[in-house]
Amino acid sequence: MIRAGIVGGTGYTGVELLRILALHPEVDVAVVTSRTDAGLRVDSLYPGLRGYINLAFSLPDLETLAQCDVVFFATPNGTAMMMAEQLLAHGVKVIDLSADFRLKDAQEWSRWYGMEHACPDLLADAVYGLPEVNREMIKHANLVACPGCYPTAVQLGFLPLLENGLLDVTCLIADVKSGVSGAGRKAEIATLMSETGESFKAYAVSGHRHLPEITQGLELLAGTPVDLTFVPHLTPMIRGIHATLYGRTKASLDDIQALYEQRYASEMFVDVLPQGSHPDTRNVRGSNMCQMSIHQPQGAQTLVVLSVIDNLVKGAAGQAVQAMNLIFGLQEDMGLKILALYP
Amino acid sequence: MIRAGIVGGTGYTGVELLRILALHPEVDVAVVTSRTDAGLRVDSLYPGLRGYINLAFSLPDLETLAQCDVVFFATPNGTAMMMAEQLLAHGVKVIDLSADFRLKDAQEWSRWYGMEHACPDLLADAVYGLPEVNREMIKHANLVACPGCYPTAVQLGFLPLLENGLLDVTCLIADVKSGVSGAGRKAEIATLMSETGESFKAYAVSGHRHLPEITQGLELLAGTPVDLTFVPHLTPMIRGIHATLYGRTKASLDDIQALYEQRYASEMFVDVLPQGSHPDTRNVRGSNMCQMSIHQPQGAQTLVVLSVIDNLVKGAAGQAVQAMNLIFGLQEDMGLKILALYP
Amino acid sequence: MIRAGIVGGTGYTGVELLRILALHPEVDVAVVTSRTDAGLRVDSLYPGLRGYINLAFSLPDLETLAQCDVVFFATPNGTAMMMAEQLLAHGVKVIDLSADFRLKDAQEWSRWYGMEHACPDLLADAVYGLPEVNREMIKHANLVACPGCYPTAVQLGFLPLLENGLLDVTCLIADVKSGVSGAGRKAEIATLMSETGESFKAYAVSGHRHLPEITQGLELLAGTPVDLTFVPHLTPMIRGIHATLYGRTKASLDDIQALYEQRYASEMFVDVLPQGSHPDTRNVRGSNMCQMSIHQPQGAQTLVVLSVIDNLVKGAAGQAVQAMNLIFGLQEDMGLKILALYP
Amino acid sequence: MIRAGIVGGTGYTGVELLRILALHPEVDVAVVTSRTDAGLRVDSLYPGLRGYINLAFSLPDLETLAQCDVVFFATPNGTAMMMAEQLLAHGVKVIDLSADFRLKDAQEWSRWYGMEHACPDLLADAVYGLPEVNREMIKHANLVACPGCYPTAVQLGFLPLLENGLLDVTCLIADVKSGVSGAGRKAEIATLMSETGESFKAYAVSGHRHLPEITQGLELLAGTPVDLTFVPHLTPMIRGIHATLYGRTKASLDDIQALYEQRYASEMFVDVLPQGSHPDTRNVRGSNMCQMSIHQPQGAQTLVVLSVIDNLVKGAAGQAVQAMNLIFGLQEDMGLKILALYP
Repeated sequence: MIRAGIVGGTGYTGVELLRILALHPEVDVAVVTSRTDAGLRVDSLYPGLRGYINLAFSLPDLETLAQCDVVFFATPNGTAMMMAEQLLAHGVKVIDLSADFRLKDAQEWSRWYGMEHACPDLLADAVYGLPEVNREMIKHANLVACPGCYPTAVQLGFLPLLENGLLDVTCLIADVKSGVSGAGRKAEIATLMSETGESFKAYAVSGHRHLPEITQGLELLAGTPVDLTFVPHLTPMIRGIHATLYGRTKASLDDIQALYEQRYASEMFVDVLPQGSHPDTRNVRGSNMCQMSIHQPQGAQTLVVLSVIDNLVKGAAGQAVQAMNLIFGLQEDMGLKILALYP
Repeated sequence: MIRAGIVGGTGYTGVELLRILALHPEVDVAVVTSRTDAGLRVDSLYPGLRGYINLAFSLPDLETLAQCDVVFFATPNGTAMMMAEQLLAHGVKVIDLSADFRLKDAQEWSRWYGMEHACPDLLADAVYGLPEVNREMIKHANLVACPGCYPTAVQLGFLPLLENGLLDVTCLIADVKSGVSGAGRKAEIATLMSETGESFKAYAVSGHRHLPEITQGLELLAGTPVDLTFVPHLTPMIRGIHATLYGRTKASLDDIQALYEQRYASEMFVDVLPQGSHPDTRNVRGSNMCQMSIHQPQGAQTLVVLSVIDNLVKGAAGQAVQAMNLIFGLQEDMGLKILALYP
Repeated sequence: MIRAGIVGGTGYTGVELLRILALHPEVDVAVVTSRTDAGLRVDSLYPGLRGYINLAFSLPDLETLAQCDVVFFATPNGTAMMMAEQLLAHGVKVIDLSADFRLKDAQEWSRWYGMEHACPDLLADAVYGLPEVNREMIKHANLVACPGCYPTAVQLGFLPLLENGLLDVTCLIADVKSGVSGAGRKAEIATLMSETGESFKAYAVSGHRHLPEITQGLELLAGTPVDLTFVPHLTPMIRGIHATLYGRTKASLDDIQALYEQRYASEMFVDVLPQGSHPDTRNVRGSNMCQMSIHQPQGAQTLVVLSVIDNLVKGAAGQAVQAMNLIFGLQEDMGLKILALYP
Repeated sequence: MIRAGIVGGTGYTGVELLRILALHPEVDVAVVTSRTDAGLRVDSLYPGLRGYINLAFSLPDLETLAQCDVVFFATPNGTAMMMAEQLLAHGVKVIDLSADFRLKDAQEWSRWYGMEHACPDLLADAVYGLPEVNREMIKHANLVACPGCYPTAVQLGFLPLLENGLLDVTCLIADVKSGVSGAGRKAEIATLMSETGESFKAYAVSGHRHLPEITQGLELLAGTPVDLTFVPHLTPMIRGIHATLYGRTKASLDDIQALYEQRYASEMFVDVLPQGSHPDTRNVRGSNMCQMSIHQPQGAQTLVVLSVIDNLVKGAAGQAVQAMNLIFGLQEDMGLKILALYP
């Protein structure tokens, strides 16, 4: 059994890791830390875990964590970078669900996250944990930077076109809608039900922190600089991300459909829907799937890709467990055969 | 492997059966029928099942169904009673999720369901599928009548008190709130999102069809007639039932808490929360658990029991699979280790 | 024009007062205070008021407020009682939407609200602002204590029966469901959309602060002590309260229906629905109406009253404006002819 | 008083007309028709109108309608075109909220709406009822074609740029999100709360009926053909439309902000928010306002306009009443001073 630790177990990605790992046949969750709730039983905060997780939250402690085989960071940005180096030195695999190791450029990171990076030297070693792009590297990684939720939906959506140079990279648009759980489990007025229920808005249009991450990823796929406009929105639901992607191409829709189906044929967690389909976030709610479809409205040059994920699963905890499975040589979908909750 | 058939696979209880059975290690779903969608691939109607259910809906056909080991009816009332007898004659186990076999009195059934009962002789043989009450009978049943969603939450909530004669049975009250999926997947104005979203109401206060079922169950537990007032409400969410139960007692809260914990100690799917708790439907969303707590506000004689389930799981498909496991001698929780989806 | 001040304009009752008063033909909102947002334009926090409220939030200041004809307190409990005396001394009418002046017994108040009462002498003078009970007293009041949202729905529902001694007062039950705006505009995890959306729960079953207020009101109506069990619930919607009231009576449903219709015939804001109806909170959303209906399920002795209001209007700001209209001799419904927002 | 008739009063735009007209000081609603509910009191179907609308639904009857000064059609497409000619012949002003008269080209109309147009000759006379474009023509119109909800949000958002030739018209994108009330009050599975709640999806990407209407309008503004990609989405809320518009420009953001503020300075129902703002649909819920803001992410050439309306008010009934006010020489905002319902 793999001994797993979770740092930051009281947030939504932390409790989602618990939901998945509690039933993972090869994992034993050995420690769950929380600075705010140390001492409290995990299942008293999350009664849905009663009978499955028999632990109390503990204070994060290097010695204890160092006895794990793998440690997940489900923490706010700026925490994992303080502890990763020491854990790695003890031979612990580190899987970070925060943004600390996602950007390769430490200065760029500082600019967007408003603090100095604590261990810029690790950035080169960190593997960006998108299995559909970096599977082999993840298998040998010691430190995985799990992609953000928006970046996962957007990169998977654009991937086959960019890899094949089929898009005009000077005018990419990603209009993306997220459920409110993406904002995390924090005491804030802006995400109260009275504020977000029955309402829809864009936010951070001038520049969202996921923009440099997406751009970095798309440029690696395209092998060239890209010009991306990224507009995130908050939609009145709890889970789910829907990316509507726009690009200009001269390829035909039939060819592109074939290309997508072929590119993702052996991917367990990317599902290209039949032509004419519209993916719906409910069909991936609670599951690790990314479902997508491709359209070319009115036969014009503007292509539309629709890509949906559950932000807490494929956009966070599920993708992290997928990376863990790869690292430890397990079946990639172990513990991740979870069907979407519909209705 | 158990060959399972599902009659009426296009409704919410049908698709929920599919979600559960698709991952059940001892079940092979062999046939899913639908009069309205025969010929259509199941996963084209329910894309969340892509890769898990490789079937098309077929017309209900006795010969095909008779080759199953078990047939689930997830049909409107009045359908199962037309086919049950013949399936039983072929040695097929029948698990009915509709109301056809829930009442022991055919005349009472006719009064509430507005049609003659097609096979009143079977009513005596049908086992009411509440494992916490009828476990041994279910193990040997050929025909199981799965309890309704409201009746499950209410009976489990009152059970320990009634079994022990601790309640004044002349004034029981069940104020119960249900998510809208309880109304089924039917084209109706009343359950449109524009009608039910952001609104709360009681309905059928003068008499809901689950009233005689609940009364029958409570009277069996109490061994005496009871006087129950049952008020169902529609709450603006998709899944979940919250029963708030009121009764008068002279027993102390501490004793009652102990009684509940003891009565349900070995039950896998009933969880008595610590004193002072308030169960929340989200903590059982998608899972087969019933969570409950007991209160005695201001130390008065009126006891309050709070009991929550997911109406589609413990209130329908999950409880049906629990019954199937019992019938076929499997572990009672096989295929039902599903953690609640939170948030 | 009446010069009105609002203390605590950044909460939901404060902004609801602004929505109503902005269009009130006889009121000029002269000052809106907020400790946290002083200096900020009101319509920058609440863009829906752009063009209607041309003010900035100011720090609460006695001198400024003393120049108003009426001051509304839309503040947390414990604030109004610090300023009321001085404002009254300046001849300002005070309408308090918080709980500071609702209970007549200062000790009882301290027990439930966890602080000493700052001006217990004023409690006797304060008029409980339920127009359907205290209309004449409100007309001559200097200090009005607006009823809480739960108490409004419960008292109006029980009123005709208690006034006429038709209920067994030893076993009253109020099972009440509230939208989340009742929890106010506060940065708290418990009322995030991810926590309250798609979920239903009871809370504070052992004792909610509105219990003594309701009991005080019901006892005044009944002229005798009553034994009330009050269970509040949180329902996943923003606005609305639905009270389901239970009591035992020997009167016939027809007589009770006639009694209710007669008692409320001249009330502008209480609407008794035809027998057999089920009120729905959406039908009063945004309006000052209380709609109700009466049922006697299965002809038994337990009577069920269903009573709905919008917690922010008839349960707070609307009822406060109704009181103001009475105090200043205006038409009782001036500024309150607002139709419910459906769908 | 203006005698108004409403044909098709049982849908959401019909009842929204009633909500507005019931309080309009110069309008008397004389007749409300419904084929399905003729004979039923309006307020028994819509209890929120009790005390405000004292009518029963009647069968649509030319003679009765011909006695009105104005008749609103809140009907499915294909109905208004059958009755408009005769009403106009009687001197009745006709305001159509359906799509029958929105397109100038009858063949194009037939192609998108799947039926022959019954009175193509009227198309030239019909005035497209967008007051911000056609105010003077509406004042003298006999027949007004109210814009669709999507077209209103999109046209108002692009208008100042197109009028001034500041956009590259070869690559306009409108990514628009609508609440579910836009689908109408029809018994359909697709818009059940269980289907649309907690989920987000695009639909009709290959071609939505509002596409030719929007294109026609944008081309009139631009004075040249435009190439528009329009992707509508369904968002899990009841009311509201949020248009996210993309276009390429060489103008500076400051100049564009100034242009928008100037263009809409005297418009009562279009509100340009300060630079850096993000409009939120809740701030126009129930009101006739369109709020918008303009962004230029990362200073690139792609401009982003955010434009929000309430689909049932500015996108339907409110805009229709605005047109009526213009036709009858009333203040343009009479009856439309309705503040958004927040929270």
